[in-house]
Amino acid sequence: MTRLYHFPLSPFCRKVRLCLGEKRIEVELVEERYWEQSPELLRRNPAGKVPVLKLENRFLTESTAICEYIEDIFPTPPLMPRDPEAKYEVRRLIGWFDDKFYQEVTNKLLTERIFKKVQGGGYPDSTRIKEGARAIKYHIDYLHWLLESRRWLAGNEMTLADFTAAAHLSCLDYISDVDWNRSDLVREWYAKIKSRPAFRGLLADQIPSFLPAPHYADLDF
Amino acid sequence: MTRLYHFPLSPFCRKVRLCLGEKRIEVELVEERYWEQSPELLRRNPAGKVPVLKLENRFLTESTAICEYIEDIFPTPPLMPRDPEAKYEVRRLIGWFDDKFYQEVTNKLLTERIFKKVQGGGYPDSTRIKEGARAIKYHIDYLHWLLESRRWLAGNEMTLADFTAAAHLSCLDYISDVDWNRSDLVREWYAKIKSRPAFRGLLADQIPSFLPAPHYADLDF
Repeated sequence: MTRLYHFPLSPFCRKVRLCLGEKRIEVELVEERYWEQSPELLRRNPAGKVPVLKLENRFLTESTAICEYIEDIFPTPPLMPRDPEAKYEVRRLIGWFDDKFYQEVTNKLLTERIFKKVQGGGYPDSTRIKEGARAIKYHIDYLHWLLESRRWLAGNEMTLADFTAAAHLSCLDYISDVDWNRSDLVREWYAKIKSRPAFRGLLADQIPSFLPAPHYADLDF
Repeated sequence: MTRLYHFPLSPFCRKVRLCLGEKRIEVELVEERYWEQSPELLRRNPAGKVPVLKLENRFLTESTAICEYIEDIFPTPPLMPRDPEAKYEVRRLIGWFDDKFYQEVTNKLLTERIFKKVQGGGYPDSTRIKEGARAIKYHIDYLHWLLESRRWLAGNEMTLADFTAAAHLSCLDYISDVDWNRSDLVREWYAKIKSRPAFRGLLADQIPSFLPAPHYADLDF
């Protein structure tokens, strides 16, 4: 059985879940309290991180490496174009979201609002919350700019770049940190991706003592 | 003309330089004081980061996306295996070094010892230096463990994983932060990669007012 060790509000885990879902690969989800660094986790992944995908008795780690591998061995439906220029653009945007957006937005807002409480890390730092809330505006404007000339983020087909961006934004939407009124184009793009069957599991996620925003699972938000 | 906007002690820029060098692609290097976030840099890369590769009047960004693109359009000599399992292992290790190793080691040691002075960021934080110096030991042990069963980091061929790891370690070697006595296997691996023609440019780098460690450019260290 394919099994994913994950944490519900990890954008990296969500990216892998969306990729598996879109490929119609059934997976058993096992929630991992990764910050406790249990010996079992470190045996599965010496980096001590989630996601960890158990596939045919091997443990696969690093979310982008996992998604590219899934794409290589299950190419249908394609989530990566075949043309090198188009592939570059997908990978550039994966880098943009998993590095820049994560550092400037996702990590700040999720750590301060949720992870510190769940994992026991002290009081929220309001400076970092303000920085994250300010930075997300520029990123939504950037997405808007991309979508002015493209149907999906990396071009005219849905790719791993869309799932990567949606993985981050969906975590932030859970805590009501995305202003969907800022851009019609971005809201329409998110509505399209949110209505994919692969998204259903994410919309059903619940973190104990942190209810999702009321519109979180609403397809017509 | 192909041009790379870079900073000499950036491991991400070094990865791209090594990749270009190994593919025998001539490139003009332009040093970019990226922390000043000049309008020209932001026009070339809205993420405000280096490396930025100018190739046929396009600006390419995100180091891993750049390297995968170079591999796609200049496949000889190969730096990525063709088999999906082997490709996964290369990408996993790129993720390991550019994320975990960077956060735990490269970023801490370089920021505290060099970047704060060059970029004007206050006094070095000795706690972070100690954390980085402690963490690198475990990473060298991990490399040692990998090299016990493989000629190169991701398998029996040299790949982008080796260049990624060497890009980080070479920055740290510049400031004498790598204990080569900790593992014969790691030292032999680094000696092999250090003697590649692609490495020469890196070994000639100089940061004003920070001389490299005496053994830095020595192939017999």
